[in-house]
Amino acid sequence: MQDNLNPTASPRRTVLTGDRPTGPLHLGHYVGSLKTRLALQETHQQFVLVADTQAMTDNAHDPDKVRRNVLEVALDYLAVGIDPGKTTIAVQSALPALAELTLLYMNFVTVARLERNPTIKEEIQARGFGRDIPAGFLCYPVAQAADITGFKAHVVPVGEDQAPLIEQTNEIVRRINRQVGRDVLPEAQALIPTTGRLPGVDGKAKMSKSQGNSIPLSSSADAIRESVRSMYTDPNHLRASDPGTVEGNMVFTYLDAFDEDRATVERLKAEYRAGGLGDMVVKRRLEEQLQALIAPIRERREQLAREPGYVFDVLRAGTQRAQAVTQGTLDDVRAALGTFSFDAVTR
Amino acid sequence: MQDNLNPTASPRRTVLTGDRPTGPLHLGHYVGSLKTRLALQETHQQFVLVADTQAMTDNAHDPDKVRRNVLEVALDYLAVGIDPGKTTIAVQSALPALAELTLLYMNFVTVARLERNPTIKEEIQARGFGRDIPAGFLCYPVAQAADITGFKAHVVPVGEDQAPLIEQTNEIVRRINRQVGRDVLPEAQALIPTTGRLPGVDGKAKMSKSQGNSIPLSSSADAIRESVRSMYTDPNHLRASDPGTVEGNMVFTYLDAFDEDRATVERLKAEYRAGGLGDMVVKRRLEEQLQALIAPIRERREQLAREPGYVFDVLRAGTQRAQAVTQGTLDDVRAALGTFSFDAVTR
Repeated sequence: MQDNLNPTASPRRTVLTGDRPTGPLHLGHYVGSLKTRLALQETHQQFVLVADTQAMTDNAHDPDKVRRNVLEVALDYLAVGIDPGKTTIAVQSALPALAELTLLYMNFVTVARLERNPTIKEEIQARGFGRDIPAGFLCYPVAQAADITGFKAHVVPVGEDQAPLIEQTNEIVRRINRQVGRDVLPEAQALIPTTGRLPGVDGKAKMSKSQGNSIPLSSSADAIRESVRSMYTDPNHLRASDPGTVEGNMVFTYLDAFDEDRATVERLKAEYRAGGLGDMVVKRRLEEQLQALIAPIRERREQLAREPGYVFDVLRAGTQRAQAVTQGTLDDVRAALGTFSFDAVTR
Repeated sequence: MQDNLNPTASPRRTVLTGDRPTGPLHLGHYVGSLKTRLALQETHQQFVLVADTQAMTDNAHDPDKVRRNVLEVALDYLAVGIDPGKTTIAVQSALPALAELTLLYMNFVTVARLERNPTIKEEIQARGFGRDIPAGFLCYPVAQAADITGFKAHVVPVGEDQAPLIEQTNEIVRRINRQVGRDVLPEAQALIPTTGRLPGVDGKAKMSKSQGNSIPLSSSADAIRESVRSMYTDPNHLRASDPGTVEGNMVFTYLDAFDEDRATVERLKAEYRAGGLGDMVVKRRLEEQLQALIAPIRERREQLAREPGYVFDVLRAGTQRAQAVTQGTLDDVRAALGTFSFDAVTR
């Protein structure tokens, strides 16, 4: 599904995105989601959730990590240019209406359906839960449906592997709309990025802090230099004069993702393939690009980190706005279903 | 486990009980729980939940029924003598902290553990869910753990078949207390009634509205007469002069439950067994007892039903008190676990 990003569309459509605060954001997040958010905040009503409740579904043993990273993720957002005047940043655990919607929706989804969810299946395997899946983890697609519908989001940017979560959301939406006989909730569209996921510097499929193969957005100049220096290239490209392989070579993968001078990148690829271009030359070019990208982010981040009061004020204001929106949705859903309400009885 | 009901104990221990509002309460509820609550409100700090959120776990297709029965159940409570000056009556769906605690606890319970819960296993079978169990139904023991701990209840009156739910609650309590290194939540004790469950008038194990074998607390005098007249006795006791069987004979089962003149009941049993006592005689005695028990309840109920504003005021006041208590518990648990809080960051 594709969303219409036409900025003249009125009223603005609503986007919901977010991150689990389990570690600092890195270049993989920048390419995969943050860049998209910078564009969407110009054209859409955008909500970004710091999903600390969801982070607890696989970090219940370490709530401290989740708590500390709420501020870190918020710093990353503001440092890359998420503008609190255009985007509402909210802390999930401070939105009780989302918990209430989750419990309500859990009555409209079967256990068998959740167990069939391909994303959940894969993640259960990846996390090594086996039979001991926490109930919260099995049910997190329902919580995500609560997040998406709680903001009445029309558009949800997700990785391709997460598209089943949007389908699960829309199943709940259709079931409730059918029961109440009208569209109290909108269906959501997955906005799947055209660029693939950025691999780790070691060439492994996913950049992640726990794998030690990521370049955080807060990286020092030295750390960036070291990451690029140690980057996985073509192990058979031993001398500069040898022909080299571009595919699966992280330096070229990263140049594709970050270097906007496409012609130069194509020329370098051709030279590298033909032989005569050393790894050091392309690494130097990539490093320049990454240093140029990250330096201003790191500087804004350091400046903001000295003003945590301001960052928390931004989060507090966004969370208050999000509380009003999500409580409004909960009220709408309850009224449509006809559940008990003190407000209704006094009428 | 037995609770100490000593009224001089100080401070008062906390009791949590409640009912799913899915139909009017009947004599089975009176014998099984309401009588106990009348005693407990004199000795304990008692909270009674109108559990409309839990009722949705198997009534999501009919929220209307649940909503209407919130008032009906409240009328039953007040009519039997639950005193809002002594007992806090609250509506579950208006307590967001319980939903938030439920989601949090779901991270501390595995799916496998929930599937092993004997109460859940039986109820899944009784409701004919098969593989299509709603996720909310599978997880309702977690929601119940949130209810019990949300009020920091020490005592929970439950039927024997529900004791596993208290064990599930205490497993969560122990797991959280262990993780935080102190007793932020108390363990709860099941208070299991010494009298068994009251069967239906047809002799079936459970009195229930859906089985059409119940005597509601709002029954008219005629309905009571009709229920007793049609009551299952001894099918082989054809003439008054025949010897009859007392065991499994509902008239005697009910006399055991409601007639406080034990000596007379024992004399009637002996005569019935020996032969010479007709069903009509014992039925007349039982009817007198039930008419005397229900008449004042029915009258108070009719009077209260003419003042729904008063009843909702009682519910509203109780719910507000319950909101403060449960929010306090949520704050305690979050602070102990160390999850994110705006209050904590401003310190």
